[in-house]
Amino acid sequence: MIMNKLVFLTVLLASTLQTTTAIWKRKTHHFNWEIGYVFWSPDCQQNMMIGINGQFPGPTIRAKAGDIIVVEVKNTLPTEGVVIHWHGIRQYGTPWSDGTASISQCPINPEETYVYRYTVDKPGTYFYHGHFGMQRSAGLYGSLIVDVADGEKEPFNYDGELNLLLSDWYHENVFSQMTGLSSSPFRWIGEPQSILINGRGQYGCSLAGGIQNGGSRKCDVANMTGTQCRPVMFLVEPKKTYRIRIASTTSLASLNMAIGEHKMTVVEADGNYVKPFRVTDLDIYSGESYSVLIATRKKRSSNFWINVGVRGRKPATPPAMAILNYKPSLDYKLPKSRPPVTPQWNDFARSKSFTYKLRARRGTLKNHALTVNRRIELLNTQNKMNGNYLKWAINNVSLVLPPTPYLGALKYGLKGTFDADSPPETFPKSYNVMAPAQNPNTTQSSNIYVLEFNRTVDVILQNANALAENVSEVHPWHLHGHDFWVLGYGDGKFRKEKDIPRFNLKNPPLKNTVVVFPYGWTAIRFIADNPGVWAFHCHIEPHLHMGMGVVVSEGIDLLGDVPKEALACGKTGTELMNTTFTSP
Amino acid sequence: MIMNKLVFLTVLLASTLQTTTAIWKRKTHHFNWEIGYVFWSPDCQQNMMIGINGQFPGPTIRAKAGDIIVVEVKNTLPTEGVVIHWHGIRQYGTPWSDGTASISQCPINPEETYVYRYTVDKPGTYFYHGHFGMQRSAGLYGSLIVDVADGEKEPFNYDGELNLLLSDWYHENVFSQMTGLSSSPFRWIGEPQSILINGRGQYGCSLAGGIQNGGSRKCDVANMTGTQCRPVMFLVEPKKTYRIRIASTTSLASLNMAIGEHKMTVVEADGNYVKPFRVTDLDIYSGESYSVLIATRKKRSSNFWINVGVRGRKPATPPAMAILNYKPSLDYKLPKSRPPVTPQWNDFARSKSFTYKLRARRGTLKNHALTVNRRIELLNTQNKMNGNYLKWAINNVSLVLPPTPYLGALKYGLKGTFDADSPPETFPKSYNVMAPAQNPNTTQSSNIYVLEFNRTVDVILQNANALAENVSEVHPWHLHGHDFWVLGYGDGKFRKEKDIPRFNLKNPPLKNTVVVFPYGWTAIRFIADNPGVWAFHCHIEPHLHMGMGVVVSEGIDLLGDVPKEALACGKTGTELMNTTFTSP
Repeated sequence: MIMNKLVFLTVLLASTLQTTTAIWKRKTHHFNWEIGYVFWSPDCQQNMMIGINGQFPGPTIRAKAGDIIVVEVKNTLPTEGVVIHWHGIRQYGTPWSDGTASISQCPINPEETYVYRYTVDKPGTYFYHGHFGMQRSAGLYGSLIVDVADGEKEPFNYDGELNLLLSDWYHENVFSQMTGLSSSPFRWIGEPQSILINGRGQYGCSLAGGIQNGGSRKCDVANMTGTQCRPVMFLVEPKKTYRIRIASTTSLASLNMAIGEHKMTVVEADGNYVKPFRVTDLDIYSGESYSVLIATRKKRSSNFWINVGVRGRKPATPPAMAILNYKPSLDYKLPKSRPPVTPQWNDFARSKSFTYKLRARRGTLKNHALTVNRRIELLNTQNKMNGNYLKWAINNVSLVLPPTPYLGALKYGLKGTFDADSPPETFPKSYNVMAPAQNPNTTQSSNIYVLEFNRTVDVILQNANALAENVSEVHPWHLHGHDFWVLGYGDGKFRKEKDIPRFNLKNPPLKNTVVVFPYGWTAIRFIADNPGVWAFHCHIEPHLHMGMGVVVSEGIDLLGDVPKEALACGKTGTELMNTTFTSP
Repeated sequence: MIMNKLVFLTVLLASTLQTTTAIWKRKTHHFNWEIGYVFWSPDCQQNMMIGINGQFPGPTIRAKAGDIIVVEVKNTLPTEGVVIHWHGIRQYGTPWSDGTASISQCPINPEETYVYRYTVDKPGTYFYHGHFGMQRSAGLYGSLIVDVADGEKEPFNYDGELNLLLSDWYHENVFSQMTGLSSSPFRWIGEPQSILINGRGQYGCSLAGGIQNGGSRKCDVANMTGTQCRPVMFLVEPKKTYRIRIASTTSLASLNMAIGEHKMTVVEADGNYVKPFRVTDLDIYSGESYSVLIATRKKRSSNFWINVGVRGRKPATPPAMAILNYKPSLDYKLPKSRPPVTPQWNDFARSKSFTYKLRARRGTLKNHALTVNRRIELLNTQNKMNGNYLKWAINNVSLVLPPTPYLGALKYGLKGTFDADSPPETFPKSYNVMAPAQNPNTTQSSNIYVLEFNRTVDVILQNANALAENVSEVHPWHLHGHDFWVLGYGDGKFRKEKDIPRFNLKNPPLKNTVVVFPYGWTAIRFIADNPGVWAFHCHIEPHLHMGMGVVVSEGIDLLGDVPKEALACGKTGTELMNTTFTSP
């Protein structure tokens, strides 16, 4: 135990030191946020959204590696709890700041305040979002960008920076969406009404006109001046290099982004540097982030389309568009050039070709990560429960979260707050991933994978056919509390003997979100070196709501006391309460 | 202190004994409820509502006086807390079962369960409803009917019973409604789309056709068979006496109810017997309940309209209709007779004439209630706050509820959980209630009226002009934890010297909800004999949301420990927590 604690402290210290050259230069950034509903017109149609300090999207957090972020979140939603997850921030030593309801903390009740305090230990492109019910889909998100520490340099040069936070937007409120997803008969949410770039889209029209199957009418741009749906215009200068940060917090849509007449060099993924490679367009799944470099052309006062279209599902949503405008700019002059066209939605070969290209800039697989201590195979299937309820399940267990957050329950040894059995480590060898399940029934559970501290874990994410014939969907899986190495991908069923020897142990990219392609598998590796309880789930919000996730815990005995504010609900709320309390 | 405790126990015992002849016959009624969203078509248009066990309205609770009700409420709303208030049940000795968020308990978090346990000590017509945000308006309500104890008799005879729970329904979801009410610029919710009888209405049409200003098209009744909006048909036999129980849990609408060709004799109001009086139609405000007796006519197989229309505000909602059908019945044959017509919405003289008729069946003003210990004058005004936010205020204080419920904060002596100052006992003598306020600005506060235990309190509810010229609205005020005597009403400003001598001390009716007419005042009296913290507020849901209420406390030192489940939020959640807790 003491050994473990030392190991953890060493890891924590090392992790802090390696990313901050000068620990005394660490800044603390303090934010006061009020979460509440706002009327907003993100796609020119007014709707109710969750805003922060009256704004949608939420304010951008910007800090340097090693800095401390303190966000006092006051919930002003009238009846709902709220939490905020800092997507990609590993929360070493601060698992109660991970912002996952039922896992790391109690929801913040109306009019209450919770203080998130954490270190941003690694430069990169991140974002934050709600992680309770489907509040992310309701608009609760924003950008979080971490620059290199003072005195450090990025391994590439650029003159300026653009930031694109991508999302999708539904006109149906999330309560109705959640009710439909949990109803029998099941009611699917359908495709989003709009794709948003930095919170701005145009419902039912295309800025360029006729871009989607020749069908979308042209937006009336003249009437968008001063509106909340006015397209974003990015100002650049000719003959410069720009870093474009792109993050996707879509509820459902997988996206593809391209810029007219500009090639892109991918240099960062999920806050980790990658071996640069050049592309004409970039696939991005919900939960992912990228940085690309572009070189602007010579000609001044020209402009180009930035186009973001739907991939992986048959699109019923027009692409989102923004404008890359060369200075000196003519405000909102639409580009004359044709906008780039999103690749065919079902051209998965092309998607794989992009995703498979990712390599770490430098080999990052540490020595002790070359020995695997445990391999967990997670088969995701679409299932029926109690007759007609539709669920997603992992090894036939559909995740249901308990009212008492795991972190407090485990730390204080409370019994009976979640299912105590161990979830399955694998699935039947005979399972045919290419066809609908012979027995589609699933069970629900709140059980968790307990990981041994500091051990190396491989996870094989195995996709399969959904309930209907010839359907298998894209699922971007996101792990909290860790980055993981992506060791490999494959089509069909993972075969230990054949596939493990082909794992990329040389320069696997570090990520926090990775896609599992239809009928395919994805292999990842991580070290369970972060004491806490962590969600690992499909980042498609309705899929998670339907049970598509698992929970892992590690090193709980190494943790100090959990803040009381994270515990004041469920059984931690009542069983840790001292009823003999009297007024001082 | 000990004296007080004895007094309280004596009161409690007396109150229990007087209503239950045989205490050993008390039954316990146990209910398991799941609160969750359902898709429902209460007015033939599908919408999302809050249901109980998948049903809207919630199940009817029926018990006998002296019985114990136990309701295990599990919250299955995905992100919202919930509470349930048992409207009209005084909760002697069980203030933590009153079901008022921020006042008597913490909201029940998603997937958590709270057990309401209380005695229904008095026969009468009651109902229950959500009391957090505007969840009542979202459909969270149902009937609660208490019969006389075994061996006791009602003071009137009847052969059968009908039950009408009246409500109104908006198509805009309550989140959007609340956001509009709290926004600057202010967005009013408008008039309801439908009036519902037992959860059933017909949007945009009238069963009888042309009933409202000759304008409503006739509903297509043939298509309503088997639907959730099929009008209620009450089956009766000829030549009998029926008791009709009527309760209103509208969000906004004041209602008038009449039955074609049947006069009604009013016998009960808010769970208290009244001196019988005969009417052709009955006004009922949100929060009120009545029982009337009707004598059915001789002719078999005839049928009549039951009509429920809007009063007090210019109606934009067609009346709700149900059918009184004489056996042997012809299913859904619509009455040939003309439906009764709702009186003119602004015929306040007629409304007053009805309301002023209420008298207790027997004088109920106890001896010690003839000495008044305190008089509080509450002026209600419409106000502006911080510029453009619209509020309602009482003596210039707009109520804002704290995150830590008062009951736990007071019981355990926690400081700083609500505003500690005393709210004003009166308003400036010079205030002109007939004109808009000269200074319309208000302040918000969570301060409370601390009442001395077992003392008699008079409250003068004083209405006034709203912000606009020549506007003063109807406000039905509801007191939790008590019935009160209605001592009198008047037009204009209350004048102590003139009006107090005219108070009805002989047979004032006991009620829990009373209307304050436009530009008028209403005087009530109650004994602060119920240890706890109690809301007293306008029962119009958007008005309460805008701050129209006060909170009173009494006898907190007489209370035993509050259930932990009522405390696990806010500062009671954290400050009563024992952090040195370790696993047993």
